[in-house]
Amino acid sequence: MFLAIGCSTEHAHIATTVLLSADLRGIDSHGIARLSGYVRLWKAGRINTTPNIGIIHETASTAVIDGDKGLGLVVAPFAMTIAIEKAKAVGTGWVSVQNSNHFGIAGYHAMMALEHEMIGMAMTNASALVAPTFSKERMLGTNPIAVAVPAGNEPPFVADFATTTAANGKLEILQRKNEEAPLGWIQDEDGNPTKDSSALKSKGALLPLGSDREHGSHKGYAMGSIVDIFSAVLSGANFGPWVPPFPAYVPMPVNQPGKGLGHFLGAMRIDAFRKADDFKQDMDLWIKRFREAKPIDELNKVLVPGDPERAFEQTRMKDGIPLMQSVVEDLNELAHNFNLNL
Amino acid sequence: MFLAIGCSTEHAHIATTVLLSADLRGIDSHGIARLSGYVRLWKAGRINTTPNIGIIHETASTAVIDGDKGLGLVVAPFAMTIAIEKAKAVGTGWVSVQNSNHFGIAGYHAMMALEHEMIGMAMTNASALVAPTFSKERMLGTNPIAVAVPAGNEPPFVADFATTTAANGKLEILQRKNEEAPLGWIQDEDGNPTKDSSALKSKGALLPLGSDREHGSHKGYAMGSIVDIFSAVLSGANFGPWVPPFPAYVPMPVNQPGKGLGHFLGAMRIDAFRKADDFKQDMDLWIKRFREAKPIDELNKVLVPGDPERAFEQTRMKDGIPLMQSVVEDLNELAHNFNLNL
Repeated sequence: MFLAIGCSTEHAHIATTVLLSADLRGIDSHGIARLSGYVRLWKAGRINTTPNIGIIHETASTAVIDGDKGLGLVVAPFAMTIAIEKAKAVGTGWVSVQNSNHFGIAGYHAMMALEHEMIGMAMTNASALVAPTFSKERMLGTNPIAVAVPAGNEPPFVADFATTTAANGKLEILQRKNEEAPLGWIQDEDGNPTKDSSALKSKGALLPLGSDREHGSHKGYAMGSIVDIFSAVLSGANFGPWVPPFPAYVPMPVNQPGKGLGHFLGAMRIDAFRKADDFKQDMDLWIKRFREAKPIDELNKVLVPGDPERAFEQTRMKDGIPLMQSVVEDLNELAHNFNLNL
Repeated sequence: MFLAIGCSTEHAHIATTVLLSADLRGIDSHGIARLSGYVRLWKAGRINTTPNIGIIHETASTAVIDGDKGLGLVVAPFAMTIAIEKAKAVGTGWVSVQNSNHFGIAGYHAMMALEHEMIGMAMTNASALVAPTFSKERMLGTNPIAVAVPAGNEPPFVADFATTTAANGKLEILQRKNEEAPLGWIQDEDGNPTKDSSALKSKGALLPLGSDREHGSHKGYAMGSIVDIFSAVLSGANFGPWVPPFPAYVPMPVNQPGKGLGHFLGAMRIDAFRKADDFKQDMDLWIKRFREAKPIDELNKVLVPGDPERAFEQTRMKDGIPLMQSVVEDLNELAHNFNLNL
């Protein structure tokens, strides 16, 4: 499909790998289910499948990259490669990206650092669905953060989370099932708490991690803001309510201050701080000790970030990736429209 | 007082400035109210007032610093100065610190970067009071994160928050007033939700930002973990349940894997990414746009991180810092014990 819309073999391969890594890790909302969404963006002229991705400014430990309207699935790995190269040279590398698009799961890009004995970080802004504390207006995206940390004998620590109480994908699942959402996930058009899982369709908003002021939503709002600033104000991309929407039918915000959407990627070489073996030994101890924390319920052991996704990956590498019927139909339609043999 | 326990004039000055900055900014729990706590740590032999703070490993963009058991109030500004120097040279600087103690408010250290036209970051681990998702055991500290971002005509963006639903200081205020805590702040010894604001005294725990699994506590847990890893596994300090406790009467954890507690500080030069003037102009726009977000209630305008602390600072610079009677008595007792004239 990526070849059919004009991507090079190399770009099609990277984009496919990023999407499949989401499906393998159980993050179905960011996997192949989104393929038709990317194609619609391309049809709308918002994605350039032959981008000239390049560095527009750099220092020894930093760079700003122009994604040239390319697929974020391709632009982000390019940027992360630059971050890793800089970390090899001077200890750390930090890359802010402008003029990009949706980059898939943040975790994939952060994890690119692991094989280099580096800590990897990835974040991105996204179109505004989230209301800051005290706001009834949507101002931020779900702005995820991923951090991947290598260990020794233990598997790596991989945190990958939206800075909202619940990811939009979880809400969409409830909508499809016609089920209510827990209080604290969303608010309605007037800013009142609601259980209506389709409230986003009537100008409601997702809530920052913390849900309300009393439970620290100002902290989730701050985190989402930091992601927005690092990804977009630092790069010259669009920020806040001006970020381009993922659904191609949603009109672009007017008076945009920047180019496309923004990402921020980082790599820190472990041995720029400590002997890598000493670090890995301590990281193994960290992971083992947290897994051994006394559980409230013996049936729900304490997990280390990355454990649930790794369990999915093991199962799905063996049994394959289950697809919802609606996704299969969507893919069949795509294949038909582009005369592809499945 | 700092001079009386053996600090140099320079160190006493820095430590006092950091404590007072907390009081000025309205973070009373981290200000002069803690002075007697630091003195008790010194009496217990856990704080070295004449530390030989130094770099034990470095690259062009990174360093690890040994705080030599010094006051974190002194060690952290030293480390931040190194981060800023490295950022001047190669764009960014990142410093992990071992063998330190409680560093006061994270915001002070992050804000040191502002006058250099840099983004500043500061985080620290702390003794275990927080239960990860599914755990009834305390494994993490309140592990705060601060990020300070310069603007142009607008005041800077300064986020400074614990990675828990509520900071421990807020809980202590409720305890003193004999009031209940909102559900979602703490759990009891068995891991059940509780409103008992003194539950921490009977083996209860603070909850990660998000409060429970359904509201994203695994994300707050991940954030607290990232702070712990960057501050301590990267530096060789103690992590997780092994972090030295702040109250001097609490025994040290056994089998500690590292030295003291850990911090992580970072500085990113704005013009390592973009022209500083362009960045500041966009940052002004960011701040103004978020302040103008439609409020749910006209009486509670949408705030930008740093606004509440700045309002406190303006009032208190004019009217002085109000102290609770118990703090005044505590300070009088200190003065008496050390034969100081107040």
